[in-house]
Amino acid sequence: MVYFDNAATTAMSEVALDALMEISSNQYGNPSSIYGFGKRAKEILEKSRRIIAGCIGADPEEIYFTSCGTESDNWVMNQIGSAWNSGVTTMIEHHAILYPAKKKAAEGYNIDFLPVDEYGMVKEGAIQKTLTGEPKLVSVMLQNNEVGTIQHIQNLAKIVHKDNEKSVFHTDAVQAVGHIPIDVKTLGVDMLSASAHKFNGPKGIGFLYIRKGCNLQAFILGGGQESKMRSGTESVASIYSMAKALEDNTTNMSTIHANVLLMEKYLLESLKREDIQFEINGAGDNRAAGILNIAFDNFDGEGLLNMLDMHDICISVGSACNSKSQNRSHVLQAMGLSDSRIDSSVRISIGRYNTEKDIDILVKWIKKYRDITMIADL
Amino acid sequence: MVYFDNAATTAMSEVALDALMEISSNQYGNPSSIYGFGKRAKEILEKSRRIIAGCIGADPEEIYFTSCGTESDNWVMNQIGSAWNSGVTTMIEHHAILYPAKKKAAEGYNIDFLPVDEYGMVKEGAIQKTLTGEPKLVSVMLQNNEVGTIQHIQNLAKIVHKDNEKSVFHTDAVQAVGHIPIDVKTLGVDMLSASAHKFNGPKGIGFLYIRKGCNLQAFILGGGQESKMRSGTESVASIYSMAKALEDNTTNMSTIHANVLLMEKYLLESLKREDIQFEINGAGDNRAAGILNIAFDNFDGEGLLNMLDMHDICISVGSACNSKSQNRSHVLQAMGLSDSRIDSSVRISIGRYNTEKDIDILVKWIKKYRDITMIADL
Repeated sequence: MVYFDNAATTAMSEVALDALMEISSNQYGNPSSIYGFGKRAKEILEKSRRIIAGCIGADPEEIYFTSCGTESDNWVMNQIGSAWNSGVTTMIEHHAILYPAKKKAAEGYNIDFLPVDEYGMVKEGAIQKTLTGEPKLVSVMLQNNEVGTIQHIQNLAKIVHKDNEKSVFHTDAVQAVGHIPIDVKTLGVDMLSASAHKFNGPKGIGFLYIRKGCNLQAFILGGGQESKMRSGTESVASIYSMAKALEDNTTNMSTIHANVLLMEKYLLESLKREDIQFEINGAGDNRAAGILNIAFDNFDGEGLLNMLDMHDICISVGSACNSKSQNRSHVLQAMGLSDSRIDSSVRISIGRYNTEKDIDILVKWIKKYRDITMIADL
Repeated sequence: MVYFDNAATTAMSEVALDALMEISSNQYGNPSSIYGFGKRAKEILEKSRRIIAGCIGADPEEIYFTSCGTESDNWVMNQIGSAWNSGVTTMIEHHAILYPAKKKAAEGYNIDFLPVDEYGMVKEGAIQKTLTGEPKLVSVMLQNNEVGTIQHIQNLAKIVHKDNEKSVFHTDAVQAVGHIPIDVKTLGVDMLSASAHKFNGPKGIGFLYIRKGCNLQAFILGGGQESKMRSGTESVASIYSMAKALEDNTTNMSTIHANVLLMEKYLLESLKREDIQFEINGAGDNRAAGILNIAFDNFDGEGLLNMLDMHDICISVGSACNSKSQNRSHVLQAMGLSDSRIDSSVRISIGRYNTEKDIDILVKWIKKYRDITMIADL
């Protein structure tokens, strides 16, 4: 199999797999238990919290474990109606932000959905226009999962905090954590969502960074785990595996990034060499390495996906979460792309384990698809 | 280590560990992806759903995966205020029910908290008294985690449904699933919560059974997973591991149950043989095998726990979730036990992997504790 859907989910790294297995086999104690075997599980939990905090410039007490990025996002958006009565987000967020935001809007809260430019960038002027001096909850994605656009979060957060010091800024960093350097203090965000399976960790585990002093209501009540903010027996093995995955991706970030860039360059050059006509959607200055949303001339995106699938090559159209809904990508639409351009687009997302050989196979079959398309068009 | 805290959490079974590792290593596809590798992950998910449904007499479409029993319980209790404006629960529920219920009560909803008798049983008359003909959401725990009391859920559900056909009955079966035979249709419940780590599966995964026709609001919004009811990329490996764990415990239920009963008998006989004075809390006709909440004459429960811990023997006082709060068990209080009796009580919970040798070690140290206590009392 050749896997080019790393923005949908990733293969677990060896350290993450080892960590998952080690703890699952040997450290099954309940971290809430007061005997030694429980305390050892608790220590693993707190060690994981320190590792993760260290990777994003947070304090350990600011990391709250959740079951996934979507849960982290819902937790944040559910706060509208408590300390904050209105919100601002963007038209290109993941549905884990968009749908809770729309639900809050339907309940009568004032939520603004910011437009983006053709590169998928949120304009500072656009966010400024929505601010009214009232305390707001603002959520802007750090790195888009469909086109890879990285927002100027630092600037946006400054604008929001300047408007009202009680306003809070959240960023859905699910696609960014473990891939680009992140420091929550430099970004100036109050909350940040992440998910392990996007950075070579296990599925079913994520976290929410909540800056000290930013008072959220608890998401799940019960045994009082996670400082009473998110109850439920902690998934110690998955949490430790997530921490080891993030540590590994962070330690090797520059090497991984360089390789992903190299593979991306090799892919684009190979496509050009084969005289395959394409344009990158959202190819601005702020596109993350490895996420290529490509419109191919005269291609049917889903047709290409299906042909590649027959040869065990995985790519996607839109995000994995969108792919079944048969709807055109809301992100590409927000960027102003025409329906026909959206329909001819696919997402090829490169990960740390991709090789030149993978690219050669991919390009070979894209070329075949082009040739078939050309014949069909004759 | 000798582990007698199986009501807090359990060691993973070999089949569960194998399943977790197999899927984590090889089937990392996103179940929402439309190519073959994603579809294979989706098939594993649906196979897991069928296995679990089969173990509790449900239809596969009635099983919704969640991150834990606490999430399942919160999901249910959050419904108060939507289709149901009042609720009934008991004083001996897990905090995953009690705290959301108290929150709803604080928000102004009418919630009744039913008392129990000295055995921890809910009386049919008590539930009848709270019913008013209005549609209610009722939640009664199937098997108590601290004393093992099994409620007459079938009768209670009948009474509730008879009062108003729009009323719904939920049971927190976290402590029961995988240990006693469960058929949701026979029980007559509309919803049922379960958690994998209580039946030798992994932590961080659970499910909620929702009877077809029982319309709950979604718990987490986003990519639309779990029939749009609980979004978030599915934790395929944990889910499959949970299914295999439940299948294994269900297939071997009578053997496991017989062994647990045997161990329990051996423990009680050994204590008597050593002339250790004790009484079982909640020792009615409906106590589950393996959960022994024992009041020892003149013992300090926490003192015993600490001494056993020094010799790598795990038992608990109250539930794991309570153990850190330093509060006396709300369950034992609801059963009318005196403070001094509660303070002299511990929970010894026997699991499928306990042996006579484990019991011998346990009893040896309980006897030592008794001897020390006697000397100290002289």
